[in-house]
Amino acid sequence: MTTSHTSDDNSVNGTSGGASPAAATDEAVRAELSRLRDSIDNIDAAVVHMLAERFKCTQQVGHLKAQHQLPPADPTRESRQIARLRELAESAKLDPAFAEKLLNFIIAEVIRHHEQIAEQPLTSDGTRPA
Amino acid sequence: MTTSHTSDDNSVNGTSGGASPAAATDEAVRAELSRLRDSIDNIDAAVVHMLAERFKCTQQVGHLKAQHQLPPADPTRESRQIARLRELAESAKLDPAFAEKLLNFIIAEVIRHHEQIAEQPLTSDGTRPA
Repeated sequence: MTTSHTSDDNSVNGTSGGASPAAATDEAVRAELSRLRDSIDNIDAAVVHMLAERFKCTQQVGHLKAQHQLPPADPTRESRQIARLRELAESAKLDPAFAEKLLNFIIAEVIRHHEQIAEQPLTSDGTRPA
Repeated sequence: MTTSHTSDDNSVNGTSGGASPAAATDEAVRAELSRLRDSIDNIDAAVVHMLAERFKCTQQVGHLKAQHQLPPADPTRESRQIARLRELAESAKLDPAFAEKLLNFIIAEVIRHHEQIAEQPLTSDGTRPA
């Protein structure tokens, strides 16, 4: 008998034969964990698709900025975005500090993309390859 | 005349009076930038609300794990999640490496929450305060 406890060790911990109360509890815990993880997986798929759409927008912003020699980063816009997201997070009961860290994480990736776009050579019509 | 170019310097660069072609272009660029930023803001609000929902699920997972002495981190589950998200990202034309970094960023926050839950004292009925 070991003191370690994993999600599939109820047969080891069961003290009586057949469907012991411990085994029934473990089964219920497993079912509940599985239900929650299915929801997490659905949410993650939604977030990935939302972010794919977000990067489509920011790629367009990047091309627009590069064509018109606007700087890749925009601190005024960013501080407005952060303030707004912190408010939204608070009303959704999400840690505002986490929402801010997440937005900074995404913005860092966006700026990296914008810099890559700005470094691409112009084509003969003065635009950059899409 | 300066060679620097910002989103509101069309009056400086316009070579003819009235609505010069340069001014019209700048106006169109500003409108397009504004349209894209509105979409980005809508997407960010959606993501914040999805993540608020995700943390509600992971908080429940955390309490379940703490009650049943399951470890806060689950490397097998995490590697399955990462593989699935990379595939989803690829089909959505999002950089799979970015999707993986993002999931790791979120999971790190979740594990921090789980550890906090596990450190809370048990109440008299053997559960932890919600």
